[in-house]
Amino acid sequence: MKALVYHGPGQKAWEDVPMPQIIDDTDAIIRVDATTICGTDLHILKGDVPTVKPGTILGHEAVGTITELGSAVTTLAVGDRVLVSCISSCGRCSYCREGHYGQCTGGGGWIFGHLIDGLQAEFARVPFAETSVYKIPEELTDEQVLFLADILPTAYEVGVLNGKVEPGDTIAVVGAGPIGLATIMTARLRTPAKIIAIDLDDSRLARALDFGADVVINNGAEDAIARVLELTDGRGVDTAIEAVGVPQTFELCTELIRAGGRVANVGVHGCSVTLQLEKLWIRNVMIKTGLVDTFTTPRLLQLIEAGRLDPTLFVTHRFQLEDTMEAYDVFADAAKTQALKVMLSALPVEPVQPTAETPAVAGV
Amino acid sequence: MKALVYHGPGQKAWEDVPMPQIIDDTDAIIRVDATTICGTDLHILKGDVPTVKPGTILGHEAVGTITELGSAVTTLAVGDRVLVSCISSCGRCSYCREGHYGQCTGGGGWIFGHLIDGLQAEFARVPFAETSVYKIPEELTDEQVLFLADILPTAYEVGVLNGKVEPGDTIAVVGAGPIGLATIMTARLRTPAKIIAIDLDDSRLARALDFGADVVINNGAEDAIARVLELTDGRGVDTAIEAVGVPQTFELCTELIRAGGRVANVGVHGCSVTLQLEKLWIRNVMIKTGLVDTFTTPRLLQLIEAGRLDPTLFVTHRFQLEDTMEAYDVFADAAKTQALKVMLSALPVEPVQPTAETPAVAGV
Amino acid sequence: MKALVYHGPGQKAWEDVPMPQIIDDTDAIIRVDATTICGTDLHILKGDVPTVKPGTILGHEAVGTITELGSAVTTLAVGDRVLVSCISSCGRCSYCREGHYGQCTGGGGWIFGHLIDGLQAEFARVPFAETSVYKIPEELTDEQVLFLADILPTAYEVGVLNGKVEPGDTIAVVGAGPIGLATIMTARLRTPAKIIAIDLDDSRLARALDFGADVVINNGAEDAIARVLELTDGRGVDTAIEAVGVPQTFELCTELIRAGGRVANVGVHGCSVTLQLEKLWIRNVMIKTGLVDTFTTPRLLQLIEAGRLDPTLFVTHRFQLEDTMEAYDVFADAAKTQALKVMLSALPVEPVQPTAETPAVAGV
Amino acid sequence: MKALVYHGPGQKAWEDVPMPQIIDDTDAIIRVDATTICGTDLHILKGDVPTVKPGTILGHEAVGTITELGSAVTTLAVGDRVLVSCISSCGRCSYCREGHYGQCTGGGGWIFGHLIDGLQAEFARVPFAETSVYKIPEELTDEQVLFLADILPTAYEVGVLNGKVEPGDTIAVVGAGPIGLATIMTARLRTPAKIIAIDLDDSRLARALDFGADVVINNGAEDAIARVLELTDGRGVDTAIEAVGVPQTFELCTELIRAGGRVANVGVHGCSVTLQLEKLWIRNVMIKTGLVDTFTTPRLLQLIEAGRLDPTLFVTHRFQLEDTMEAYDVFADAAKTQALKVMLSALPVEPVQPTAETPAVAGV
Repeated sequence: MKALVYHGPGQKAWEDVPMPQIIDDTDAIIRVDATTICGTDLHILKGDVPTVKPGTILGHEAVGTITELGSAVTTLAVGDRVLVSCISSCGRCSYCREGHYGQCTGGGGWIFGHLIDGLQAEFARVPFAETSVYKIPEELTDEQVLFLADILPTAYEVGVLNGKVEPGDTIAVVGAGPIGLATIMTARLRTPAKIIAIDLDDSRLARALDFGADVVINNGAEDAIARVLELTDGRGVDTAIEAVGVPQTFELCTELIRAGGRVANVGVHGCSVTLQLEKLWIRNVMIKTGLVDTFTTPRLLQLIEAGRLDPTLFVTHRFQLEDTMEAYDVFADAAKTQALKVMLSALPVEPVQPTAETPAVAGV
Repeated sequence: MKALVYHGPGQKAWEDVPMPQIIDDTDAIIRVDATTICGTDLHILKGDVPTVKPGTILGHEAVGTITELGSAVTTLAVGDRVLVSCISSCGRCSYCREGHYGQCTGGGGWIFGHLIDGLQAEFARVPFAETSVYKIPEELTDEQVLFLADILPTAYEVGVLNGKVEPGDTIAVVGAGPIGLATIMTARLRTPAKIIAIDLDDSRLARALDFGADVVINNGAEDAIARVLELTDGRGVDTAIEAVGVPQTFELCTELIRAGGRVANVGVHGCSVTLQLEKLWIRNVMIKTGLVDTFTTPRLLQLIEAGRLDPTLFVTHRFQLEDTMEAYDVFADAAKTQALKVMLSALPVEPVQPTAETPAVAGV
Repeated sequence: MKALVYHGPGQKAWEDVPMPQIIDDTDAIIRVDATTICGTDLHILKGDVPTVKPGTILGHEAVGTITELGSAVTTLAVGDRVLVSCISSCGRCSYCREGHYGQCTGGGGWIFGHLIDGLQAEFARVPFAETSVYKIPEELTDEQVLFLADILPTAYEVGVLNGKVEPGDTIAVVGAGPIGLATIMTARLRTPAKIIAIDLDDSRLARALDFGADVVINNGAEDAIARVLELTDGRGVDTAIEAVGVPQTFELCTELIRAGGRVANVGVHGCSVTLQLEKLWIRNVMIKTGLVDTFTTPRLLQLIEAGRLDPTLFVTHRFQLEDTMEAYDVFADAAKTQALKVMLSALPVEPVQPTAETPAVAGV
Repeated sequence: MKALVYHGPGQKAWEDVPMPQIIDDTDAIIRVDATTICGTDLHILKGDVPTVKPGTILGHEAVGTITELGSAVTTLAVGDRVLVSCISSCGRCSYCREGHYGQCTGGGGWIFGHLIDGLQAEFARVPFAETSVYKIPEELTDEQVLFLADILPTAYEVGVLNGKVEPGDTIAVVGAGPIGLATIMTARLRTPAKIIAIDLDDSRLARALDFGADVVINNGAEDAIARVLELTDGRGVDTAIEAVGVPQTFELCTELIRAGGRVANVGVHGCSVTLQLEKLWIRNVMIKTGLVDTFTTPRLLQLIEAGRLDPTLFVTHRFQLEDTMEAYDVFADAAKTQALKVMLSALPVEPVQPTAETPAVAGV
């Protein structure tokens, strides 16, 4: 079969690899129907994630169909259409038993395209299948559910829930890339009174308005702290959500919140930040970090089924799975291509038509 | 001045009464700009609430303007436009200190039109003014905020929050009168995947759809339990909210919920109910009752200001304050008049025009 | 091997049965080192639990040693000493994934001595072994951990945690049998200011004092409601925990609590109760029922290991496993024998010496 | 009357000052029966808190007797014996309405000995008396309740509750000065399985054992991180509580916790700290800061009344109020005097007798 293989920093290829095999009794093999590329994959390709060994197939998000099952799997069947999540759960360790699958100590956590072969491939081996995949209702398309594999539960759990967003709150989302937009989209499930999006790029901020922001601030052009204080009667926001991953944006978040406010960190950070405890010690602030656990995946799936959440808004470009290399080029050059998320499908696809909501460059 | 005075069961009059006076240093006097009638007022007139003494002015919901203040009031000013809430808070007792104003043991709680003179009057004395009224932003109309005085926080706190409604849940609201509709409206702030409204009256159920229900069940015509199980894959709803106040509807709620589900009781009950503990003891159910505390009033106000909540949908009829007697007739005959909430305004009003959303009989 | 087999109402025998076999890949076989008898076993023998079929081995609490494992089990080893809990967890259904193992819909829940053969036997088959047993630290005795199989997590989760007991609260525990005593013992982990035990039997109330109650009320001899109001300045308790299972005690609980108080039901109920909603609707009460989930078992185990919890106080009688029939007689006649919990051990035992804390009739 | 007046950095005097007067209708005047000195007072004297103006009476902790009341005060009476808390609450602002009195925006918060005259005086004016003092049960001594004015609710709320300490947890308390010891004492109300105290001073660590620590680590002598990992099977603690206020101890806390763990900051910080987000972003950590709100004061009072909490353990030295200058010397030289908290009493006092629990240098 074919797969996208990492060959060390800056090197990847869509190439022949052996078919995956059942190793443990709790494994499944799936045929990949749809997959996508994550910003993390670009980090890996830059060499930022040394735990990924050359030779690893990349990708940690997929919709697939089960083709084979280990002997201990009794609640899934060959032919089941499933979402394969970025987080695997052994189901037995103390973290998994408490719903914190992202911190699994039994062999799960983030393993696809990281510690084991991933999902940008025609087929894939899925460990701990019964506790790591979700059956998909027949009436939902691949596009409707694919982003449940990572970006939506990450934004909702690590941003919105960790940030304790409640109806009537005023919140700031710092960073309007795909994860920031997903944060805005899922924050609306809890009906804040006001969502303020902050970014350095006006075209991203325009997207933020499409996704549900009420106010946008370009903090290259204006003083975000001053503006937020003005918008909140001098009080600050209830919750600030960091969706970039650099010190400046994190530190900005700690300055945007009111006394008693919360900072939820979604960004992936590569270096330390400064925490101004000399100001913050007295202000009852809460700071929360996290890797997604995906415990909200079933709820988010129900909201998609009910028509209350529409993740297809993320799809700016569609490709055949065999054109994964080209998809990487488009996704990596987002500043120019305006790519948010790309769909890679095993079946023939039609190009996305640009719409008011997705004013992006069309796909292949 | 004029006021609507209760003269014992079945007896009321719009008549001359003395102007209210400041009694305690923490009082305010307000001119009533708008008020409304509550189902509870009808119960009082039937004689169901013996703690209301003949001679009491009725009414516990108002928007008003402050005309006089006690000497200890420093955070309000004459001329301030305020919401006067159905719940007064002494601000000092242990319940008030914890935000449970409805259970105030310091002289507050539900007192207007109950233990002291109420708000269906040209002027009113407001005890504990600083901890019992809310300043209203200039740009909001009386109609936009009046229902914050009771029905909206009651529905949201006692129904939605007590019922722990979370995004993705499936919930049932039993009873589609005004309080049931307010429950549906405020439940949407937490984005359940599905809201099922249950009532015996098809015209009420049609309203429920207008207010945001996804499915309606007439439990006179069909088996509500069977239908709910069918809608939930045999599981039952996550939360059932009782918005009627009779044993049958409460007991129905306990049968609609899944294992681990919640029943939130909003209805005012006049007799005991049967709790089938022989079934429920093993099912991890939670039952919660409550009088509103109104601690969410500021949040709901912010949502109205932000355009995320539109309570004007409740207004089916508008009257001059001097026509309060006529307004009672219309409100009491809701089956015929389709009245939900009536606006009583001190200033000249225009009749409501029937719309698709408020397909009710027009006002005066 | 030998086991205690149920042969229909009133009939049981310690008799030869076939050795248990591995059926599913996720099974374990254990040798029973210690087991005990639960009040529920007596109910089964009265015929109160018709879902138990004649021919079933009884018992749902054990400490054992693994003798054989299914092929999918990788985190346990033959020779491991484990606690076998009254609740089995499939680990995969939505309830198990959220930690609500008691409501497992995947074949677990309360199954031992109920739907499958139980643990009052020399050996037993344990389904879903990896998600249903707990390894025991070497330094702890069977007696120290056996009651983690049921009574301690039941009391703590269904009574104390569901009742939201917080430091400084005043609580009432209605019923001072073994489960009531376990509630008192585990409530102390959250340091209420005052624990009031209520029962009809003075000798049980004396035990309640031994287990940590501060005040005892014999509600056959005095008016429990009046006394509780007196003890709480007319307010009522913060939490009342029902540990009997009859309508009178449940209804008493709803009358003992303050406005805003909680009732946690631990008792197993065979008939409906009356809920005085005409009084309770306005008082912000919370009522919670539940079957144990056992999610706190690891925490309670750590507390035993740390010496902060001493369940050996429950052991009033010790028997050899082969004397299970005699143990049933002693346990069933608790009014005379003062039995709380009996230890049934596969290894030779010494009789318990009566002490100040366990002023009970000594064992065999 | 006499009072301890701050005259700028390094300068203070016990001197004649005018008697305090009622200013607002909500004020009380109290006669100070007992007061104490806080580490914060030493900071003020060093000039670290420039918001304290020369001429201010210091002190923010007292037990007193009401001698005069403003006209709006109805729930207190002259002669009432009350605890005067370090936090005043206006009772009306949004923070006070939600129980966050420490963040009061209506003129309260920490004001005594800071923005207004304090409590190290013979008499004091107490603003917002009804929402800022607590009546004391007759049977409790000044010594039993005085530390409720600051150190106990600070430790419990900002350390233990913010740190979400639950029965069975393993926690680390970094810093074994008075506030660290109060954290250990109040943590025990929630029965952690293990409390690890960390400090650089062996005599403080000896005290930590007296106050309830299970293990002590001198992190000058050994590697605290390595030792904590060893004590927790390589996992880290559930909660680390910072009770010092310097970067090293805060940063240590972030390294001691397990994935999913909590850091609660109690220390007062004068400079920024480094947060290693490159490690922490993926570990689901929660960091919480806070000024005390004192919302738990009534609960802690009930625990003292019930004999479940004994704060007299803190008293190492007793003085007459008129000897306040001498008390400052003893308190400031804690390294030599072993002072924890000093009692300053208006009435004649007897010296503390050294005991096993208070192995300190005796008082005057």
